Amino acid sequence: MSQVYGKVALIGLGLIASSMFWAMKRGGVAGEVSGYARSEATRDTARRIGLCDTVCDSAEAAVTGADLVVLAVPVGAMGTVAAAIAPYLKPGATVIDVGSVKGAVVAEVGPHIPETVHFVPTHPMAGTEHSGPESGFATLFDNRWTLIVPPEGADPAAVERVEAYWQALGANCERMEVEHHDLVCAVVSHIPHLIAYTMVGVADDLSRVSDQEVIKFSAAGFRDFTRIAASDPTMWRDVFLTNKAATLEMLGRFTEELFALQRAIRTGDGEELFDYFTRTRAIRRGIIQAGQDTDAPDFGRGKRHE
Amino acid sequence: MSQVYGKVALIGLGLIASSMFWAMKRGGVAGEVSGYARSEATRDTARRIGLCDTVCDSAEAAVTGADLVVLAVPVGAMGTVAAAIAPYLKPGATVIDVGSVKGAVVAEVGPHIPETVHFVPTHPMAGTEHSGPESGFATLFDNRWTLIVPPEGADPAAVERVEAYWQALGANCERMEVEHHDLVCAVVSHIPHLIAYTMVGVADDLSRVSDQEVIKFSAAGFRDFTRIAASDPTMWRDVFLTNKAATLEMLGRFTEELFALQRAIRTGDGEELFDYFTRTRAIRRGIIQAGQDTDAPDFGRGKRHE
Repeated sequence: MSQVYGKVALIGLGLIASSMFWAMKRGGVAGEVSGYARSEATRDTARRIGLCDTVCDSAEAAVTGADLVVLAVPVGAMGTVAAAIAPYLKPGATVIDVGSVKGAVVAEVGPHIPETVHFVPTHPMAGTEHSGPESGFATLFDNRWTLIVPPEGADPAAVERVEAYWQALGANCERMEVEHHDLVCAVVSHIPHLIAYTMVGVADDLSRVSDQEVIKFSAAGFRDFTRIAASDPTMWRDVFLTNKAATLEMLGRFTEELFALQRAIRTGDGEELFDYFTRTRAIRRGIIQAGQDTDAPDFGRGKRHE
Repeated sequence: MSQVYGKVALIGLGLIASSMFWAMKRGGVAGEVSGYARSEATRDTARRIGLCDTVCDSAEAAVTGADLVVLAVPVGAMGTVAAAIAPYLKPGATVIDVGSVKGAVVAEVGPHIPETVHFVPTHPMAGTEHSGPESGFATLFDNRWTLIVPPEGADPAAVERVEAYWQALGANCERMEVEHHDLVCAVVSHIPHLIAYTMVGVADDLSRVSDQEVIKFSAAGFRDFTRIAASDPTMWRDVFLTNKAATLEMLGRFTEELFALQRAIRTGDGEELFDYFTRTRAIRRGIIQAGQDTDAPDFGRGKRHE
C-alpha cells in the first residue's frame, strides 16, 4: 500500500486516464478515483467496465473534493476544461495534465488555476496506437519516462508529491524545462509521427500499387509506420497545432537531410549512403543498452522470435 | 519429409541464408546443404555453429553438383558472384537470388547464367534488424511473403519447383513482374527505410537535444525508426543504388505530401490534419485484418501487453 493522494479525479477517460486508473488500483496509489468524460457513450462504457470508483456526469462534480485532478484530454481542449473546473477545485489540491506539448498547456491552463491550487504539468511518454476507455492497462507506464515540467515558482513539495505519484504508477521521472521539453518531444515523437502519417498517406494515394499490395507486403518496413500512424487523430492534430515552432524547425532539418540522401542516390554516391546508414546503427545500440527496448528480432514480424 | 531439392548451395551466409538453412533442416527440404561466404571469419563461425552440412572455401566448390544455388549476397555483388560460379553450375540446376531489387539483379545476373540452367529471381519479404551468420532462425519466413519474379520465357516447371521450395520454408508465394516488384518494394520497404535512416540521422545531429535524451525518450515513437534504421548498411546502400528510378519517384511524392502537411501546420489548418490522420488509420486496420500483424498494443513498448 503506497497511497499518495486521497481522492483523484480523472478528466477525460481515454488510453492514458484509463491506464492511470488501473495502475492506481494495482498499487493502491489513491484512496478513491472519480472520473468524467464529455461523451455519454464513454461514461457508459466506463461504468460498464468498472473504470473509476465513481463516474460523474460533469467535470465539476468529479473534481469536487479531489486532492489531485488529472487533465487527460487533447491539448487543444485543456484550456476550456481548466476554466470549467477552476471554481470547484479544493484549496491545496494539485492539478496535473498529461499532454504531449507543454508550452501551450502552460499558457492555456495556467491562468485559470486559483492561487490556492498547485499546477504541475506532466507528460507520460507511453502509449499505444489504441485509444478510448477500453484501451487502458495497468502496466502502460512501467519503466517508461514521465517528464515533470514545473512552472517557475512551483511549490517544491507539490512537485515532489506529483513525482512520487507517477513513480507509484510505475514510471521513471525526469524534470525538464518547458521549452526544452517541446523541442525534445518534437524530435523523438512529433516528427516521427508526422512522417509516419505522411508515408502511409503516400502509399494510400498510389494508384499503380494497389491497397491490397501495400497491406499484404507491409512487413517489409511499412508496418511499423502504420502502427505509428494509427494513433488518435484528435490528439495528434492538437500536438502539431500547439507545438508549431519546434515542429516546423525540425521538419526543416529533416527535409534538408532527406534531400542530401536523395542527391546521393541520384548521383550514385554509395560511400555517402553507406557511411550514413552505418552511423545510425549506433543510436539503436544505445537504446538497447538504455533498456528502452530488447534486441530480440521483431522488425517485420507479428510475433517475437523465441 | 518434403524434400524439394537434393543438394542446395548457399552463397553468402547472412541473416537470410542462415535462416533458409535452419528452415530447410526443420522441414527436410534439402538432401544436403553446402555454403560459402567471402569472409573467412564468417566461414569459421558457420562451421562452429553447424550452419550448412559443408562450408566450402570457394563459391565454385559450393555450387558443384548443386540442384539449387541461392545467391544471398548484397544486390551490388550478385553479378560478380554469378560470373564466378557460372562455369561450375550443373546442367538442369536452378539459380535463385534473394535480393530486394529485381530489375538490377535480372540485368546483372541473367547474362551469366548458362542456357542449360534455370534462373528464377525471388524476394523473401522477411528480415530483422540483425545481420550475419548467427542471426538466422528457422521461423523467419513463416507466414511471410516471398515474391517470385520469373523472367520472360522461364521454364514453368522450374518456377513451380522454386515456389514449392519457398512454401516448404514456410513462406506464402506471389508472382510479380520485375518492374512492378521494384515499385511495390519502393513503397512498402525502400522509402520507409530511407526515411527512418534520415530521421535517426537528424536526431543524432541535433546539438540542443543530447544523444542521451534521444535514447532515453525513444519509446515515444522514435524507437520504431531506430529499429528500421539499424538494418545492414551494405544491403541498403545497394538497394538505393540499384532501385534508383522507383526510389526517386516515391521520394518526390513523399516530400510533396510532407510539404502539404507542413503548410497545414504553419497555417493552423486543423481540419486538414485531422482528416489526413483519420484516413491513415484505415490502412492499419487493413493490415491487421490481413493477418500481417496483431492488434496487441506494442507501440512504444519493449514487451507486448498480455
